[in-house]
Amino acid sequence: MIKVAIIGASGYTGAESIRILLRHSEAELTYLTALPEECGAVEDIFPQFKGRFTMQIEPLDMDKLSGMADVALCCLPHKVSMGFVPKLLDAGLKVIDFSADYRLRDINIYEKFYVKHTDTENIKHAAFGLPELFREKIKGAKLVANPGCYPTGAALAIAPLLRENMIETDSVIVNAVTGASGAGNKPSIKFHFPNMNENFFAYGVGNHRHMPEIEQIASDLAGQNVTVLFQPHVGPFDRGILSTVYCQPKEKVSNNQLIQLYGDFYNGEPFIQVCQNPPAVKDVAGTNNCHIFPTFVKGKIVSFSAIDNLVKGASGQAVQNMNIIFDLEETMGLI
Amino acid sequence: MIKVAIIGASGYTGAESIRILLRHSEAELTYLTALPEECGAVEDIFPQFKGRFTMQIEPLDMDKLSGMADVALCCLPHKVSMGFVPKLLDAGLKVIDFSADYRLRDINIYEKFYVKHTDTENIKHAAFGLPELFREKIKGAKLVANPGCYPTGAALAIAPLLRENMIETDSVIVNAVTGASGAGNKPSIKFHFPNMNENFFAYGVGNHRHMPEIEQIASDLAGQNVTVLFQPHVGPFDRGILSTVYCQPKEKVSNNQLIQLYGDFYNGEPFIQVCQNPPAVKDVAGTNNCHIFPTFVKGKIVSFSAIDNLVKGASGQAVQNMNIIFDLEETMGLI
Amino acid sequence: MIKVAIIGASGYTGAESIRILLRHSEAELTYLTALPEECGAVEDIFPQFKGRFTMQIEPLDMDKLSGMADVALCCLPHKVSMGFVPKLLDAGLKVIDFSADYRLRDINIYEKFYVKHTDTENIKHAAFGLPELFREKIKGAKLVANPGCYPTGAALAIAPLLRENMIETDSVIVNAVTGASGAGNKPSIKFHFPNMNENFFAYGVGNHRHMPEIEQIASDLAGQNVTVLFQPHVGPFDRGILSTVYCQPKEKVSNNQLIQLYGDFYNGEPFIQVCQNPPAVKDVAGTNNCHIFPTFVKGKIVSFSAIDNLVKGASGQAVQNMNIIFDLEETMGLI
Amino acid sequence: MIKVAIIGASGYTGAESIRILLRHSEAELTYLTALPEECGAVEDIFPQFKGRFTMQIEPLDMDKLSGMADVALCCLPHKVSMGFVPKLLDAGLKVIDFSADYRLRDINIYEKFYVKHTDTENIKHAAFGLPELFREKIKGAKLVANPGCYPTGAALAIAPLLRENMIETDSVIVNAVTGASGAGNKPSIKFHFPNMNENFFAYGVGNHRHMPEIEQIASDLAGQNVTVLFQPHVGPFDRGILSTVYCQPKEKVSNNQLIQLYGDFYNGEPFIQVCQNPPAVKDVAGTNNCHIFPTFVKGKIVSFSAIDNLVKGASGQAVQNMNIIFDLEETMGLI
Repeated sequence: MIKVAIIGASGYTGAESIRILLRHSEAELTYLTALPEECGAVEDIFPQFKGRFTMQIEPLDMDKLSGMADVALCCLPHKVSMGFVPKLLDAGLKVIDFSADYRLRDINIYEKFYVKHTDTENIKHAAFGLPELFREKIKGAKLVANPGCYPTGAALAIAPLLRENMIETDSVIVNAVTGASGAGNKPSIKFHFPNMNENFFAYGVGNHRHMPEIEQIASDLAGQNVTVLFQPHVGPFDRGILSTVYCQPKEKVSNNQLIQLYGDFYNGEPFIQVCQNPPAVKDVAGTNNCHIFPTFVKGKIVSFSAIDNLVKGASGQAVQNMNIIFDLEETMGLI
Repeated sequence: MIKVAIIGASGYTGAESIRILLRHSEAELTYLTALPEECGAVEDIFPQFKGRFTMQIEPLDMDKLSGMADVALCCLPHKVSMGFVPKLLDAGLKVIDFSADYRLRDINIYEKFYVKHTDTENIKHAAFGLPELFREKIKGAKLVANPGCYPTGAALAIAPLLRENMIETDSVIVNAVTGASGAGNKPSIKFHFPNMNENFFAYGVGNHRHMPEIEQIASDLAGQNVTVLFQPHVGPFDRGILSTVYCQPKEKVSNNQLIQLYGDFYNGEPFIQVCQNPPAVKDVAGTNNCHIFPTFVKGKIVSFSAIDNLVKGASGQAVQNMNIIFDLEETMGLI
Repeated sequence: MIKVAIIGASGYTGAESIRILLRHSEAELTYLTALPEECGAVEDIFPQFKGRFTMQIEPLDMDKLSGMADVALCCLPHKVSMGFVPKLLDAGLKVIDFSADYRLRDINIYEKFYVKHTDTENIKHAAFGLPELFREKIKGAKLVANPGCYPTGAALAIAPLLRENMIETDSVIVNAVTGASGAGNKPSIKFHFPNMNENFFAYGVGNHRHMPEIEQIASDLAGQNVTVLFQPHVGPFDRGILSTVYCQPKEKVSNNQLIQLYGDFYNGEPFIQVCQNPPAVKDVAGTNNCHIFPTFVKGKIVSFSAIDNLVKGASGQAVQNMNIIFDLEETMGLI
Repeated sequence: MIKVAIIGASGYTGAESIRILLRHSEAELTYLTALPEECGAVEDIFPQFKGRFTMQIEPLDMDKLSGMADVALCCLPHKVSMGFVPKLLDAGLKVIDFSADYRLRDINIYEKFYVKHTDTENIKHAAFGLPELFREKIKGAKLVANPGCYPTGAALAIAPLLRENMIETDSVIVNAVTGASGAGNKPSIKFHFPNMNENFFAYGVGNHRHMPEIEQIASDLAGQNVTVLFQPHVGPFDRGILSTVYCQPKEKVSNNQLIQLYGDFYNGEPFIQVCQNPPAVKDVAGTNNCHIFPTFVKGKIVSFSAIDNLVKGASGQAVQNMNIIFDLEETMGLI
């Protein structure tokens, strides 16, 4: 049994990681931590686990952690995570980090969108944890940077086009919509129920932090710089991201060719389903699946993808990465 | 034109009062106040008024207020309101107070559920502003205690039964459900969208502050003490209260007799509709209406009512009271 | 491996049964049937299974079924089910029936609320499938009548009170709220999204079919006739039933006594959690759990329970019953 | 008083037209029609009007209609409307038609997306009823083609750019999201509450009927052919359309220049608000307003607009058109 610690277990991704790991036959939760003011019995903090799972969430004690876990799912926020990851690695744990701190290879870009980076050394060795695109690098990794939710959905929607060099690299537009859980569990005016309910709006215009992350993945796939205009929106539902990606093809393609291309590209991938119709977020809710529908419309390729932002966009993908690192069946705990 | 000030205009009932008064042909908004940190242009605080209504919300200045308004809608919270109402009255304004501070005649009960009362004198002269039940007292009032949202829905559902002495006074059960706007505009864990969405729960078990208010109205109607068990719930929608009231009739009645009784009791009331089917909150959303359906089931009378908690349960009823005080058509601004 | 057929697999309870059984380590789906016009690949009918489960839903062929399955989950509607259950039993299968056709022992009551019964013989041998209350009878049963969703939530909320003879049997009021999935997957005016969204209303006033079912369970528990006034409502969410049950205690009890009583009664039950606060439907969504909170308020006992109508109220309870019949760990597939 | 008939009053746009006209001081409803099976008292068909408005919806009788109305709001569906509009015009009424039948000047395009047109004569004289863009033509019109909801939001978002010839005409992408009321009041699988709730998806990929309508308006504004890729989506809310329009500017512009340009273009328009932040559909719900936010992002102009699909996208705009035709204050009934 792989012993798993969750660092920063008191938020939505912590709860989702617990939910998934409770069904994992080769992993067991051994240590859960949070800020002191967010500690307590799991079933008090997350009443959905009442009677299903008894364990304490405790303040992190590095001495205690050593030996108690083989791997840490590090669910800390951006900027905070890089203060803990080096210690976790030093303690001999594999680390799957949910924050943005180890995703961007270019420190300048990181520091432009976030803050000064304090652990630039480990970035060099971090694998970007999007298995369908970068599985080989994940296999031997000690540190996996679990991708952002939007970048996961966007990259999967257009990866085949970029790999095959089929689209212009200066005109990719990612229009995406997330459910409200994407904003985390801290109450705020915008996400107060009577404000968010029956509402729909755009945000992060021109400066969302996932824009450079999407560009990095896209550029890696294309083997050249790709510019992406990324525009997120939020809608009145809990879970899911629908990405609608507009691309300029280098030459006309048929819908059949696109389906064929995507089918070949994702052949054998257990979590990717290439569809014949636009996907719906409800069909992937609670699963690690990504439904993709590419199509040719009025001279452009429009590719749609749907994921659950908390599963394939966070905790599910983390467990998928964990399975790869420990050489387990990749779908374990995720069916 | 009646000049109207709104004291505490930055919350949901403030916005709703503005919305209603913009359509009122004999009233004009002249002064809007809030706490200093909540002041600014109306259209910045409530973007729904962009281009429709230009006015500043300012910190309250009593000197400025005098002469600027004939009536104040006082939308301050419980406990805070009684600090301002005496000043407003002294300044010569009529006051329609949205808080609980002037609703309960028995100071002991008020102080048990709230805090020590600091303006017991004005309580004696306050009219309880539920026009369909207490219109005469409202007519000449200088101070109207605008009823709570739950008490409005509950009382209208059973008033005919109590007036006609048809039910046992020790076994009234009010089971009610409110939309989330009833909790106000302050963000909180419970009303954070991803927590409240897809959820439904009870709260205030055995100690909700509207329980004594319902009992006071019921006792006034019955002419004797009425005990009410009041159990509120909250559901994932913005507006509306559905009250399901269970009563023990003194003798069997037919459904037709009930419809007849209610029809007679509310005859001529523009905002009360006696229905032949269970009411739905969506049918009264945005209106000052109350839909009521009384019925006899298995030895009990079950009476349902639906109101919009922000309109008939707050701002609409306040304007209705204002119309009464100033001898205007009661429906003005409310159609 | 237990071979499971689902008869009538094309509705919400069919999909939910598939979802649960995919995670069951000792059961496998071998045969799925539906009306001819609702047949096809599972992943076309339920896109949420794309890439996760490949199987055809076919028209029922009794010859084919024999030998292909050990047990049938019969998800057919009321009135239809009794036309198939005798054949399934004759074919040697155990049957867990989701309809009301085998729940009511009193044929007269069944025929009053439904239609003429055509299989009165098998009713005599059907076990009522609420394991926490009637586990012993389920163990050896060939036919289990899986309870209605409302009766499950209501009965669990008050079973300890009835068994201990603590409440008056003529004044039980069950006020319940269901999510919209309770209405099934057939489009209708009331459940058309723009009508049901932001809405809340009562229905089935005085004549809901689950009323006699609740009364039967309550009477069994009390050992005497219990009269129940049952009033259902529907709210704008997918899953969950919140039952608020009002009872008249024979004598005063403390909240601690109630918690103690319920804790003892449900001691060792893996799916029942006795809570110290009102339960919320979101905390049980997707699980087979029932959260219960009993309390003493103003001379009455009010007991709240929350279940997922599609899991503990239907498919989850069916799998729990299946586990009992086949002597498996009762929680298998349900964690 | 202008006498108004509503032809096809039993749907959502009929109800919304009634709601608006009840507050119109210079118009009165005189005749409401629907298919025989959808007739009855308004308050039975639309319970939200109980006690507020008493009138019958009747089968259309052309003889009765003559003389009873000055103007018809024709809320019939596409393809049906053109069978009635000529008769209404012949009877001497002005007609504001909600269908697509008189919107597209190019019959070939109409017939490609709809059916054979049977009233090509009147198309020639129809004014396209988007007042902010084509007010002059509406003034003297006998027949106004009320625009589609999507075209209204999309066109208002980019009209200044097209008029000023600032963007490439071959690369406009309109990504839009509508609330579920846009699908009308007929129950369907997709809009069944448990399917639409918590869901989000694209539809009409490459072939939505509003695509040519948007292109026609855009081309009129630009004075040359404009190609538009239009991709609609639907989200789990009642009302509102958020359009996110991506354009390729001919040269770089600053955000300030855009705000200035839009402010000038829409100067004096009572229903258009140019904003400094992304608009939200909830802020325009129930109003005839359109909130617009244009911005320059990564070499592109992204312009956002929010409208209520049933008001500015249908009934409100129709009343605005009616006010123009009859030389009334344009905002009458719409504040």
